[in-house]
Amino acid sequence: MRQPYILDSFEQLVVGEEFDFGSLVMTEAAILDFARQFDPQPFHLDPEAAKASPFGGLIASGLHTEAACFGQVIRSGIFERVSMGGSGIEVAWPAPVRPGDEIAVSARIEEVTPSRSKPDRAIVKHCITGRRVPDGQVLITIRGTMFMRR
Amino acid sequence: MRQPYILDSFEQLVVGEEFDFGSLVMTEAAILDFARQFDPQPFHLDPEAAKASPFGGLIASGLHTEAACFGQVIRSGIFERVSMGGSGIEVAWPAPVRPGDEIAVSARIEEVTPSRSKPDRAIVKHCITGRRVPDGQVLITIRGTMFMRR
Repeated sequence: MRQPYILDSFEQLVVGEEFDFGSLVMTEAAILDFARQFDPQPFHLDPEAAKASPFGGLIASGLHTEAACFGQVIRSGIFERVSMGGSGIEVAWPAPVRPGDEIAVSARIEEVTPSRSKPDRAIVKHCITGRRVPDGQVLITIRGTMFMRR
Repeated sequence: MRQPYILDSFEQLVVGEEFDFGSLVMTEAAILDFARQFDPQPFHLDPEAAKASPFGGLIASGLHTEAACFGQVIRSGIFERVSMGGSGIEVAWPAPVRPGDEIAVSARIEEVTPSRSKPDRAIVKHCITGRRVPDGQVLITIRGTMFMRR
């Protein structure tokens, strides 16, 4: 896997290339804070109530894991000169995220399609994957469509 | 559209039924706060830099609009007795969200499939839509898959 660098143009992207964005830790405090703001379900919000849930304990909101892993990619700066925003995203959560879980974040470039109507940009499809450290269990996949400058 | 109520079982859901979750306002302060935490791209983070972006001004992170609209549904309590979490989501952002935009949130029940392997639950597909008030422009659609108790 390649280390991220600051892209100057979508033309530098290589389909199939995969970038390593390091890892982040999902702390209990951050899980509770996100749940309070955006997803106040008992198994995201309350460690005691979560024990009686199907998950047997607190788990992160899937939207939190999504935002945290996406943020890890954005903060690397890789897309800061080329990003023109995104039009859609498809997210899957194959396993729950628990407080203290460390997530290794990578992204693979899946498609780069120069726009026919707007020659200054391409439509880029990527797949961000978050894997639990150290066992490699996939916790999230995020397939996104972004517009990027030439 | 129906007002939300607290479901006791997925069996109360009717495919095609649509619920009205009222509206929320995306304030500039909330947009900047989310961007700082999760999506620090210039057009989400910095009103001045955003003027030079393809959007001509600050827009909300799509992940923020997603979390805010999903949160509006969750806070209604409709799923609080039946939700067993979700497995995936598909999000589209047909138009940008600007500071001060008011978003009317509704959700339509698309599919209710009792699980064959786990008779205590169903797989429920729903589509949450966020429309700008007052012109009705669709700003976000969120197609989600959740597990719900019988």
